[in-house]
Amino acid sequence: MDRKLNLVRFVSVERMMRIVGKRGVARVLTDLAACIEADFRRWEQFDKTARVASHSHDGVIELMPTSDGRHYAFKYVNGHPGNTRDGRQTVTAFGVLSDVATGYPLLFSEMTILTALRTAATSAMAARHLAPRGARTMALIGNGAQSEFQALAFKAVLGVGNLRLYDIDPEASARCARNLAGFGFDIAICGSAEAAVLGAQIVTTATADKANATILTDNMVGAGVHINAVGGDCPGKTELHADVLRRSDIFVEYPPQTRIEGEIQQLAPDHPVTELWRVVAGQAEGRRDGRQITLFDSVGFAIEDFSALRWLADEAARTGEYDELDLLADPDEPRDLFGMLLRAGAGPAAAHQRPREVCETR
Amino acid sequence: MDRKLNLVRFVSVERMMRIVGKRGVARVLTDLAACIEADFRRWEQFDKTARVASHSHDGVIELMPTSDGRHYAFKYVNGHPGNTRDGRQTVTAFGVLSDVATGYPLLFSEMTILTALRTAATSAMAARHLAPRGARTMALIGNGAQSEFQALAFKAVLGVGNLRLYDIDPEASARCARNLAGFGFDIAICGSAEAAVLGAQIVTTATADKANATILTDNMVGAGVHINAVGGDCPGKTELHADVLRRSDIFVEYPPQTRIEGEIQQLAPDHPVTELWRVVAGQAEGRRDGRQITLFDSVGFAIEDFSALRWLADEAARTGEYDELDLLADPDEPRDLFGMLLRAGAGPAAAHQRPREVCETR
Repeated sequence: MDRKLNLVRFVSVERMMRIVGKRGVARVLTDLAACIEADFRRWEQFDKTARVASHSHDGVIELMPTSDGRHYAFKYVNGHPGNTRDGRQTVTAFGVLSDVATGYPLLFSEMTILTALRTAATSAMAARHLAPRGARTMALIGNGAQSEFQALAFKAVLGVGNLRLYDIDPEASARCARNLAGFGFDIAICGSAEAAVLGAQIVTTATADKANATILTDNMVGAGVHINAVGGDCPGKTELHADVLRRSDIFVEYPPQTRIEGEIQQLAPDHPVTELWRVVAGQAEGRRDGRQITLFDSVGFAIEDFSALRWLADEAARTGEYDELDLLADPDEPRDLFGMLLRAGAGPAAAHQRPREVCETR
Repeated sequence: MDRKLNLVRFVSVERMMRIVGKRGVARVLTDLAACIEADFRRWEQFDKTARVASHSHDGVIELMPTSDGRHYAFKYVNGHPGNTRDGRQTVTAFGVLSDVATGYPLLFSEMTILTALRTAATSAMAARHLAPRGARTMALIGNGAQSEFQALAFKAVLGVGNLRLYDIDPEASARCARNLAGFGFDIAICGSAEAAVLGAQIVTTATADKANATILTDNMVGAGVHINAVGGDCPGKTELHADVLRRSDIFVEYPPQTRIEGEIQQLAPDHPVTELWRVVAGQAEGRRDGRQITLFDSVGFAIEDFSALRWLADEAARTGEYDELDLLADPDEPRDLFGMLLRAGAGPAAAHQRPREVCETR
């Protein structure tokens, strides 16, 4: 077993934090935006499917697979808004990158942090194609777990240095501002969403309530603004008034998924939208003029996780920041799986314990 | 972080072998058959979906999720027949059991060995409802990685003590017989599939070629036999002649999946089949008489993996045979994911490395 076919690289939360720390969070966000953009440019090479969701009373568990024919990736992600009540995360995630030729996993990783990073990187990449040129001020409405990542991605990728924060919980805005101290922002904490959007060329909404909320009403959105709508990402969870949508040119990741999960769930199923990858690939127009309202209706798509896992696999290899898990059975002779068990002591002489009730409490 | 919300239990291949060794493989198979049967009895409580497959030139990667509303489970499994050429397994698998209320994973485990065990346990459980009473002799055609597990499950669950082995590769039969020595079987190695079925009340086919093969022709199947067809499990991969199917009463796991992947892909899409869970739950008849030919068209379904992971979670807890993975980000304050990164050293002062081309070789 000198090839160690049984071992799969594993990036823990601790290792992920070290990888981000070594490279610097701003550069990680720039890296990820570049990787995601490169994969959006070759969108047609990917197997695509809407994520596979298992809904329950308290939340949802989703699997998000995709493949480009060389690599396969999937992410497991949950969304449970009530989790913060007992100290858990609303969203946690982990994922796997595999080799399509053998089906063998190459990397298993935490993805709670990685998802926060790739979501922000995707938003900034989209804004580079859609926001008005020279935009320097962003309103950031909803200052929870995603907010600092959004701010840093827009600064790293677009040079957005002025932030106008608003959250219904003032402590959330204060923490966001505190966490961003030292990164070179000019930060204003605002008393209302209306105040936050004043003078902003970019408006990012990233609230977490699982409800049809109205964070942005029609009168709050002036000509030329780019809206980066991050928080409306499952059925029954939206942030924008439908009138805002009707005035906007709408850009989405994967329409079959966004029609169900995004802001556009409020619109007719045939309301015109543009697939973001077409803009990236030069097949469709992004921003046309300075008065147009553009909207990136972001829900998160599997290809972004694929890009992030590809990036991480390289980065883990480069830094050595990974462990190895004994995940794959690797008998000396491939067809002799049972022989491996036997030699490990599961033979006929293995201890037969006294019968015991199993499954009784199921 | 005294609750250690970041840690998820992990059962490695080594741990799995120890768990099987401690309990004894025969008892593990009996346990699993009981757990799977209990879950088939409450089939209607499960969220069910056909597995999500990503096909490529060399094989397939599949995700198999299900949930009973309290627990959620999914398995990742590949099928790459060419893998054995360079020492890899045709099929490898791993999986996760989660808590539906929080979406948090409870257990991450190897499932290559566990899949081999649960497949055999499911076959034996089905045969207990379908095979002729008092069956003591099984033909086992295809003596690869699944064969010993099938033999041991049928012995443990039904008392089948006489085996008639056949494989196109005589060395495979010899190894199977060698591995089963000491488990109390009476074993005959046969020179043809025709010879193997002589006098057998149960015929198990578990060949691995990805093709429409004809392992069993019509004249080989006598009245009263139970056929346990394990190897026909993906589109374009079958083992039985269609005439055999037409003479059989056919029992399947989940029809939307079996119609595509099982032996019945050869039949009209409305050919009558019985869902095995209905037999288990007493809602449908299994074997009616001694002349009937019964066929379990097994392709493997997510609920069997769910049952196996539930069993394993208990067994790992009981024996202490697990490790713990730092898989879930667990900030002191749930909404402060970025703060956790900051405190780990990813702040503005983190080392900014020289720019480096990323994604250039994608």
